[in-house]
Amino acid sequence: MKKVRIALLGLGNVGRGVCMILNSNKEEIMKRSGYEVEIAKILVRDKNKPRGIDVSKELITTDFNEILNDDSIKVVLEMMGGIEPAREYMLQCMDKGKHIVTANKMLLATNGDELFEKADSNGLMFKYEASVAGGIPIINGIDESLTANKIKELYGIVNGTTNYILTKMESEGLGFDEALKEAQDMGYAEADPTSDIEGYDAQYKLAILSSLAFGTKIDIDNVYREGITNIKPIDMDYAKEFKMVIKLLAIVKENNEKLELRVHPTMIPKKHPLANVYDSFNAVFVKGNAVGDLMFYGRGAGDLPTGSAVVSDVIAILRSNIDLENNNSVVKNNLWDRKIADIKEVKSKFYIRASVLDEPGVLGEITAILGKYNVSLRSVIQKGDQNEEGNVTIVLVTHTTSQKQIYDSCNEISSLRSVNNIDNIIRIEDFKN
Amino acid sequence: MKKVRIALLGLGNVGRGVCMILNSNKEEIMKRSGYEVEIAKILVRDKNKPRGIDVSKELITTDFNEILNDDSIKVVLEMMGGIEPAREYMLQCMDKGKHIVTANKMLLATNGDELFEKADSNGLMFKYEASVAGGIPIINGIDESLTANKIKELYGIVNGTTNYILTKMESEGLGFDEALKEAQDMGYAEADPTSDIEGYDAQYKLAILSSLAFGTKIDIDNVYREGITNIKPIDMDYAKEFKMVIKLLAIVKENNEKLELRVHPTMIPKKHPLANVYDSFNAVFVKGNAVGDLMFYGRGAGDLPTGSAVVSDVIAILRSNIDLENNNSVVKNNLWDRKIADIKEVKSKFYIRASVLDEPGVLGEITAILGKYNVSLRSVIQKGDQNEEGNVTIVLVTHTTSQKQIYDSCNEISSLRSVNNIDNIIRIEDFKN
Repeated sequence: MKKVRIALLGLGNVGRGVCMILNSNKEEIMKRSGYEVEIAKILVRDKNKPRGIDVSKELITTDFNEILNDDSIKVVLEMMGGIEPAREYMLQCMDKGKHIVTANKMLLATNGDELFEKADSNGLMFKYEASVAGGIPIINGIDESLTANKIKELYGIVNGTTNYILTKMESEGLGFDEALKEAQDMGYAEADPTSDIEGYDAQYKLAILSSLAFGTKIDIDNVYREGITNIKPIDMDYAKEFKMVIKLLAIVKENNEKLELRVHPTMIPKKHPLANVYDSFNAVFVKGNAVGDLMFYGRGAGDLPTGSAVVSDVIAILRSNIDLENNNSVVKNNLWDRKIADIKEVKSKFYIRASVLDEPGVLGEITAILGKYNVSLRSVIQKGDQNEEGNVTIVLVTHTTSQKQIYDSCNEISSLRSVNNIDNIIRIEDFKN
Repeated sequence: MKKVRIALLGLGNVGRGVCMILNSNKEEIMKRSGYEVEIAKILVRDKNKPRGIDVSKELITTDFNEILNDDSIKVVLEMMGGIEPAREYMLQCMDKGKHIVTANKMLLATNGDELFEKADSNGLMFKYEASVAGGIPIINGIDESLTANKIKELYGIVNGTTNYILTKMESEGLGFDEALKEAQDMGYAEADPTSDIEGYDAQYKLAILSSLAFGTKIDIDNVYREGITNIKPIDMDYAKEFKMVIKLLAIVKENNEKLELRVHPTMIPKKHPLANVYDSFNAVFVKGNAVGDLMFYGRGAGDLPTGSAVVSDVIAILRSNIDLENNNSVVKNNLWDRKIADIKEVKSKFYIRASVLDEPGVLGEITAILGKYNVSLRSVIQKGDQNEEGNVTIVLVTHTTSQKQIYDSCNEISSLRSVNNIDNIIRIEDFKN
C-alpha cells in the first residue's frame, strides 16, 4: 500500500473531526484512495491546550516551517479559519508543491481567486467542500455532477444557527431573543452571534457557491444581505396563514444576463422542499437547465460532518489521476465575466406589515401611494383589535415588484399621519418566477 | 480548443436529451471540460424512425462496427437499455480503449462486475450516474463525496412512477387502479407497468447503490422485493392517522455486519424529509458515520435530467487527469465481501390490517398468538362499523420484530375462525433503529 503524508493547520473542532475520521474509517479510506494516509504534523498555536482527542505529542508543532519545509508532506489541510495567516500559509504551501484542502469560507469568499490561480499555475489540486454547508457535497455537486448544466437559480439554507432559531420561532412560537438564547444554550449559536444572525456567514457562503455555479468572480460587497433579527412571532403567524414559512435564504439567480445575489429572510411555500428543512440542518436547492430541480440536504456544521467533507476532498486528490510527485493537475478554473444586478432593481413579491390608526380611509391612502409607484397588491389583511395606542396591524402582499418601488412607496407610506410604522418588509419566493 | 469525438449507442429519450444538452450548453461544456465535444456517430436500430430532434443524417448508423473501429472515438455513451447487445457492445468498446458512460440499470445490476473489471484492467473510466435516480448525482455523491464515511444506511425513493401513484392516492384519496391510470395518462407509467409497480426497477437501482455504498458485489436475487399493488386507500387513511405516509422505499442497512437489502412499501413519519418527496420526484437519504444524515432530491427520469447525468459523466472523464490516448486511469474498484441478511430475520416495526368478526374475544385470541411468537404490540385500533359480511377492520402496530415472527404469527391468526382475512402487512420505518 502506498503511503501519503499530510499535515493539518489547526486542531479545533474540524481538525478533531478529521483526526477521528482518519482513525475510525482507516480501512475504508485505504480501500477507496489506494493510500495509507498518515498525519505527519499538526500546526497549533498553543501546544498545551486540551484537544479532547488522543493525538501523539510528537505530531503537534507551533512552527509552520516544519510543515512547509517537509517535502514528504504532499497535502495540507487548512482548518484555522480567518484570513491571515491562513492565506499566507496556503500560498507558501502551494509554492512548495503541496495540494490544499480548506474549510475556510471567509478567506475563499474574499481572496478565493488568488488561491485558485496559484493552484492552477502550479498544477495543484485545491479543494474546499467543507467551506459551504459542512458535510453536504454541494461544492462537488456543482463542480463535478452538474457540469452539463447552465445553472439558473440556487437557493440555500446555509446557516444552521439561523435555521434553528427560525424553526424554534415557527414551531414553538418563541420570540427571536428567546430562540437565540436557546440556540446559544444548545451550542448552535456563539456568544457573539452577529456573523450568523446578521447573515454575514451566509453571505460568504453564497459568494463561494455563486462563483462556482456561474463560473465567475463574486465580490462579496455585491451580495445583498439582511439578517433575521427583525422577524417577529406575528410574522411567523401570518406566514402560517399564507401556508408559508420564513427561512433565511441565500439566493442567486440569473435574470436578463445579470446575477441577483442576496441573503435575506424569505417567505416560501410550506410545500416546497426547502420549507421542510428544520433545526440546524442545511440545504441547497438548485435549478439547472437540464437537471431541473435538485436539492442537497444535510448537516451544515459539526466536527464529523465537516470533517467528512475535508477527508473526502483528501481522498478525491489521492484518487485523481494526478501524479503526487509531479503536480500535473489539468483542472483549471475558467472564469466568465458576469454582470451583477443592482439590488434596487431586483424583483420579488413582498410581504409588508404595518401598524396604522384604526380609522376609515387609511387603506385608501396606502393603496393610492402603492398605485403611484406601480406596486400592485395581491392581498390585504386587516384583523385583530386595536392595541393600547389605538393602532391596528395590516398586512399587504404585493405582486412581483422591484425593491426600489417597495422602499420608495413604503417611505412615503410611513410619512402618512395615519400610519404609525412599517414594522417589517419580507420578500416572498414562490418559485414560480 | 482540444476536440473529443464521442459516439451514442441509442437515440431514444435519454439519447435525445444528451443531444439537446450538448447543443444548448455547448459553451459551458467547453469551458468546464476544456474540450469541444463532437458527436461522431449515433447507433440506432431503425434509421427512418422519427426522433423528435434535429440530428444530421450522416451521424446516424445501424452498423455498430462503424463506431467500434473508429479509433478517433474516445468515449461511448450507451443508452440502449437491456442486457444484449448493450453488454457485448460495451465490452468490445472497452477492448478498443474507449471510455464508457452508461445509463443501463438492468445491465449494471445483473452484470456490473464484468463491466467494472474490464474497465479496471484496461485503465478506462466507466461512469454510470444516469443509471440510478436520473439527474440526481447520487452515484457521484457516494463515489466521490462521501468516501470518508462508512455508510450505515441508505433509503431511496428511486422510482418516480410509484411515487406519483402513492402521492395521488395520499393527496386525492384515489384507489391504486385509478392512480395508475392517471400515471399512465400523464406518461409516468408504461402500458405494462409491472417493472415499476412490482418494484423490479427499484430493485435494480438498489443493487447498484448498495454495491457502491458498501463496496461489494450484490446479487440481485438477494434484494427482497414487494410492490405497491396491495396498498389501499384505507391504509393511506391509517397512515395519516399515525402522522405517517406510505412510500416505496429501497433500503439497505448494515446490521450486525450483515446487509439488509429490501424494496417494499414503508410507512414513514410525515416529518421525515423523504415523506415530503412528492409526485414523480426521487430522493436518496444516506446515513454515514461521519456525515450523519444526508439527502439528495430531484428528477429521477426524463430526457434532460437523465441527459444531464450522462453529459456530466462525459465531462468528468474529460476533466479527470486521464490521458485519453493512453488510458492511464488509476481508479480501481476495490471490493469487500459482505454478508447478506436473510429477509426472514430482518427486523422492522409492522402495521397489520385485518378484517375480523365483530364479536367479543377476537382481540384476545389474536394477541395471544402474537404473544406466543414474541411479537409485542405498540397499538391496536378498531373503529368503524361492520361491513355487509359482519366484519370490522382492526389495525395492529407492532414493536420491532422479525419478518419471520410476523409471517408465522399472521399465518396462525388468519386461520382463526373469527378472522376473515389479513388484508395488509406494511413495514414501518421511524428512522430511530
